[in-house]
Parts: sequence; C-alpha cells; structure tokens
Amino acid sequence: MMKSLGEAALAAQPVLAAASREQKDKALLAAAAALRGNVDGILAANAIDMQAAEQKNLSAAMLDRLRLDVARVEAMARGLEDIARLPDPVGRVLAEWDRPNGLRISRVAVPLGVIGIIYESRPNVTADAAVLCFKTGNATILRGGSEAIHSNVAIAKALARAGAPEYAIQLIPFTDRESVAVMAGMDQWLDLIIPRGGKGLIETVVSLARMPVIKHYDGICHLYVDRAANLDMAVDLTVNAKTQKCGVCNALETLLVHQDIAAEALPKIAAALREKNVELRGCGKTRAILTEIAAATEDDWSTEYLDLILSIKVVGSLDEAVDHINTYGSHHTDTIVTADTPAAERFLREVDSACVFHNVSNRFADGGEFGFGAEIGISTDKLHARGPMGLRELTSYQYRVRGNGQIRG
Amino acid sequence: MMKSLGEAALAAQPVLAAASREQKDKALLAAAAALRGNVDGILAANAIDMQAAEQKNLSAAMLDRLRLDVARVEAMARGLEDIARLPDPVGRVLAEWDRPNGLRISRVAVPLGVIGIIYESRPNVTADAAVLCFKTGNATILRGGSEAIHSNVAIAKALARAGAPEYAIQLIPFTDRESVAVMAGMDQWLDLIIPRGGKGLIETVVSLARMPVIKHYDGICHLYVDRAANLDMAVDLTVNAKTQKCGVCNALETLLVHQDIAAEALPKIAAALREKNVELRGCGKTRAILTEIAAATEDDWSTEYLDLILSIKVVGSLDEAVDHINTYGSHHTDTIVTADTPAAERFLREVDSACVFHNVSNRFADGGEFGFGAEIGISTDKLHARGPMGLRELTSYQYRVRGNGQIRG
Repeated sequence: MMKSLGEAALAAQPVLAAASREQKDKALLAAAAALRGNVDGILAANAIDMQAAEQKNLSAAMLDRLRLDVARVEAMARGLEDIARLPDPVGRVLAEWDRPNGLRISRVAVPLGVIGIIYESRPNVTADAAVLCFKTGNATILRGGSEAIHSNVAIAKALARAGAPEYAIQLIPFTDRESVAVMAGMDQWLDLIIPRGGKGLIETVVSLARMPVIKHYDGICHLYVDRAANLDMAVDLTVNAKTQKCGVCNALETLLVHQDIAAEALPKIAAALREKNVELRGCGKTRAILTEIAAATEDDWSTEYLDLILSIKVVGSLDEAVDHINTYGSHHTDTIVTADTPAAERFLREVDSACVFHNVSNRFADGGEFGFGAEIGISTDKLHARGPMGLRELTSYQYRVRGNGQIRG
Repeated sequence: MMKSLGEAALAAQPVLAAASREQKDKALLAAAAALRGNVDGILAANAIDMQAAEQKNLSAAMLDRLRLDVARVEAMARGLEDIARLPDPVGRVLAEWDRPNGLRISRVAVPLGVIGIIYESRPNVTADAAVLCFKTGNATILRGGSEAIHSNVAIAKALARAGAPEYAIQLIPFTDRESVAVMAGMDQWLDLIIPRGGKGLIETVVSLARMPVIKHYDGICHLYVDRAANLDMAVDLTVNAKTQKCGVCNALETLLVHQDIAAEALPKIAAALREKNVELRGCGKTRAILTEIAAATEDDWSTEYLDLILSIKVVGSLDEAVDHINTYGSHHTDTIVTADTPAAERFLREVDSACVFHNVSNRFADGGEFGFGAEIGISTDKLHARGPMGLRELTSYQYRVRGNGQIRG
C-alpha cells in the first residue's frame, strides 16, 4: 500500500515538475474554490474528529488546534490564493558562468522530488504544506495525526478534485505509529521528510529516517540588553517578543541584561512585563535587583516555556551573553538591543543562530515577515534550509552545461 | 573518548569560524610545509600500512589507493596551497533586501559547524577533506580506514603541528566498525557526516546516522546520441566519456542511440571503442547492427562498471531516452549529443540528474572543471548540495536582520 503511494507520487512528480506556472496556479485557485465549495463536508468531517477528541478529553489547546470553522476554511482557501500569486521558484537561473574551454555552466532551481510531511493535530497543514510543495513542483505524501483523520481526508479530497496532476498530493489513510516508521524507510521514493509537530514526533522521525529530514525544533530565543541599549527600546522589544504571542517558537524565553545597565533596566522591564502578567525567574544578580521574583534553576536556561514566563540573567559582558546563547539556546532567533554598532556586529557574527537580530523583536523570525510570502516552518537545521523556510527552500538545483563537443584531456 | 573529541571540536569551531581568511590561509600554507617537512615520517608510516596490506593480499587497486610516495605527498601539499589561494566563502552576503517596515535582512554564508568524514583506504583524504572543511571554518572529525591508519596518523600529526586552532582537525584513532556507529549517533556534536567510499560504507552510515549525511553514490552515467547528432562529435564524446578514465563516477556506463541514426552511428562508435579495448553489450536492436557483441541483460542498465565495458541501447525517441535515464540512471551526469537545440533543452529540463550536459563529455562533471577550485566529492543527494561539491557547499547561512526598534503588531 505504502509502496503503491510511493510509486504513484514518483510517477506524478515529473508531470508536476514540467508544469508551467500558469498550470500550477490554475490548479491552486481551483483547489481554493474546492475548499470553499466543500466547506460543509469539511466541517461535518471535523465535527466527527472534534467529538472523538472531546470524548478522549484532549486538552483545550489540542482541541483548538483541531477545530475548523468557516473562517478557518476560508483562511486555508486564501492561503492557496496567496501562494498562487507568488512567483514560481522552479527554473530560476541561480548562477551562470563560462569556462575558458567554452563550457557555459548554469545552476538552475528544480523541484526536490517527493516530500513526505508527517504532522499532528492541525488539519490546516493538509492544505498549507501540500500546496507549498505543489507550487514548487514537488509531489507530497501526507501523514496526519489520528485525531484529525476525518478532517484531513475531507480536505485532501477537495484538493484532489481541483485538477492537479493525479497523485501529486496523497494522504496516507493510516495514522498509526507504524505508518511513520514505514514512511521513514521509504527513501526509494521520498527525497525529504518534514515532520511538523512536537519534539517526540521529530525525534521518532530523526531516529528512523533514511532520507534527509528538515527539523523544526524548539525556539529557546534570547534578547540581550547591552550596556549601550536604548532602555525604552529594550522595554518595548522585550514586551513584544515575550507577550505578542507567547506559544510560538520565535517568542522570547530568556532575557540577558548587561550588569552595567541592570539596576536601571530591570525594574523598568519587570514593571512592563508585570502589566502583561508575565512570571519572572531570575539569576542571583537579577534577584538582587528584582527581589520579589523566583530563582531560575539551571533547567530554566534551556526551557522553551511557550507561556507567559521569562527567565532573566545578568551578564558581565557581550562575550558572556554570546556564550550563554550559544550554550543554552536552540540556535533559532536571538536579538541584541544596543546603540553600539560594533558590539551589535560582533553579536550578529558570533551568535550561531539561524536568525540574529539587532534592535528588532524576535517575533519577526517568520517567512511572511521576511517577505517570503509563505513558509513551511522555521528550520533549526543548518543543512539545506536554515531559519524561515519558504518556496526557495523547497527546491534543489541541477547543473546544465552547454558546449560544442568539449572532451577532457 | 568520542565524546571528548566531539566536545573539543565543538569548542574549536567558533575559534575557526571567527578566523580571518589570512589566518586560515597562513595555517594552510604552514600545513603544506609541514607535509613536505615530514615526508620521510609519512612515507615510513605508509610503508607499515603497505606491508600489512600486502600480507592481507589486498587487491592491486586497493594497494594503489593506499600507496604514498614523494610525488603524492607533494600533490597533497600543493592541494593545500591551491585551497589557500581560493576566496573565503565564509561571510559572503548571499542576498540582502529591505522590508517596508525598515528591516534590513541579509542572508550571510557561515560555516556548517563540525563535520564528520568517514573514509576508506585513501590516506590523502586525511589532508584533502580536512583542509576543505578548515578553509570553510568547519571543524572536522576524521575516521579513516584501518588499512591506512599509520599513514593517516602521520598526516594528521603534520597538519596539527601547523598552527591551526587546536582540535580543529581531529583523527579518531579507532578504525573498527563500532566507531562508525558511534560517530553516526553523535548528532549532539556533528552537524554533518560525509562518507567517502564504497556503497557498503555509505549504506551503513545512512542507516545509522541521526544527523544529515551527504552521499556520493554511484555514477551510472548516460550519453544519448540524438537523431540530429553530429556523428563525429558523438564518437569523440563517447570515447572520451568511456575511456579517458573509466574507474570514476562520471565515466560513461550506458550509451543510448536514436533508432533513426543507429545504423550509421553504431558501427563508427563501436570501431572507435574497440580500438580502446572497450567491451560492448547491446540490446536486441543494437545487436541487429553490431552482430558480434554480447547481449545486455536487465542488470546491465543499472550497473556502474567502472571498467572498460559499455552497455548500448537503441531508443525510439528522445522521450524513451529520458525515461530510460530517469529509471535506470543514478541521477549523476547525463549528456545529449545533438544539433537540435529544442531537443537539447528538453533533455536538460526533463532529465532529473545533478548534471545534464549538451554536447559535452560526461567527464566534465567535476568541481575542478566547473571552476570551483576544489571539490570534496560529487553529491548524488538533492538536499543542500547536488553534483560537484566545492567550498560553497560546505557552508550554511544565517539571517542577520538590522532594525531600529521594530515590534510586531
């Protein structure tokens, strides 16, 4: 069964790779219309999933991830239309040069091939991830979570009716653990697996996969208030990075403050965060200034709270800040606030993270905010794609070389 | 022990990442001098390996791969000097743009981190691979084959004495299978593993590795003589691609000939190949023309001979040629010979290989020939690096974003 899915995807992929931008965008618009046209069926399927989830006493957060309504289906449809408007990354000439022997060498963007997406409870991933792959000429095999199976099937059916090449987007009807293991061994058919979900899922896929995996692990993000920081800016950026949306990977988890400015900065920052109901946990030096807050333990420095909690540490130097971030962080997104440009430039060079920001809220680490038009996630890997992953990162390249009979001597 | 190697590499890597081009090149030149200065010691160590290999009755090809002499050590030293002359890929601004909110976003090339190289009998890999990683700011952990252990230790010692940051290049003193498995599980320290060697070694690493692996699998390379081919060019390119060096991955293994030109082309090509002692194996249609040659079996189409053997198939169309290549090939390097430009362009677009050539010998699939200055191999992967892998492919990138207090609304 899995083998026949793999073979169908492999057969569909060259058709999709050869499709023009117009053909792909037409199919995307038709898919958006199909989602809108099938909204009743999709919501009915989702109601079955929701009922089962409630009976299983899933958490409120889980239920919210699973729930679809007219607005959420409409958002999916709009997402498809947005992607249709983006330029086609396939076929771009990335580089071109001539060799002394007359060879003309071009590096040209091509699809990756067949991409496996393994995800958990959000049914919108079925549409969002599949169409990003579709736009980039990749076939997809989707394996969603068991809680969302009826919703996923209904969405995939709507997409499949939209005139895309047959088998370009396929949903595995199994949701057991075994199907993840089988997919992870399908390196004959799958060029890449992207797990979308919690650490446990990613871990499982990494352990089993024979093909490349692009991981979207934790964001343990830092903001460092340098001694030359503008204090108002430090307050604004900290509050925004921590509280604008605290359950996401680019939210702030640890604040570092230079000791020379700590006595002045910490009370201001703490007051602003208290208004937003943020719980603070500090190192010894922090608690000498903010005497009312709890002590941070060693574990706090490597915890992604995804909640209104912030750990705070006073550091003696820029070097100590960089060391702390490189040691305890997850190499995701880290910010320096300072008016000292050489200090900022050193921070940007020395912090080994996908995104390093100067005087910018960590929350801007996002494909949309970077201008990519769409993103499939934020990679914490260093190979192939790092940081926000847009359409560009869903392509590979090939070398096309044109000559006139050159032989090697 | 492996853990302490990993930790030492991780500690050395930021020092190396921050090194200037001048510092790195000075160390490379010193390493070249150290190889020359220690040539006697290196050759004495190699003599021990050679004696053991002869006692084990290793094949002549294996012995040749293992053997060092003054010229080969000199070639290693020159390789280091060549790499010192190449521009530093680290720190290049790959892209830069402004956002409407005033953010300035740069994508900048940075080192990958710590790279594991697992290789077999060639001791020169110890120097060649390590210094490519060194130039790109990556620390390396090398694990060579047991046959070459004395040579590898002598070379690594010479490199280590050359003033590079301590622990930037480390050789594992173990050569058992177990050490491969341990390395493959070291994803806490290794950002990438590159296995250099036969299919068995690569397979083992792929099955075990938790971190990304860049594979350099077989080259089952094709040359397709289109019906609009210049016949003299077809003969020259076929002979060059098959015989200029037949034991390498970009050598030709299967010749495809359009049926309309087969009766004229095949005898000419066969005569030229016979002069070079190439054994031919053909499909039925080929053997109707070249009656004296043996029949190709189904296995021949997916065999990398690495020898003076060529399989030949007559195809009815360009489509059939493309299908054959995409089905039986290894997506390495495939060539069309034709004077018909639209046919050539279709071939380049539709053949899903790392290198697709028009009127060029397959043997040009090489980092040196592409102008990269050096190569660590030819990737048969589609993620991160595809085709000849030079310095550029040994880097990752990070996003550096500069603002003036932007917060997300």
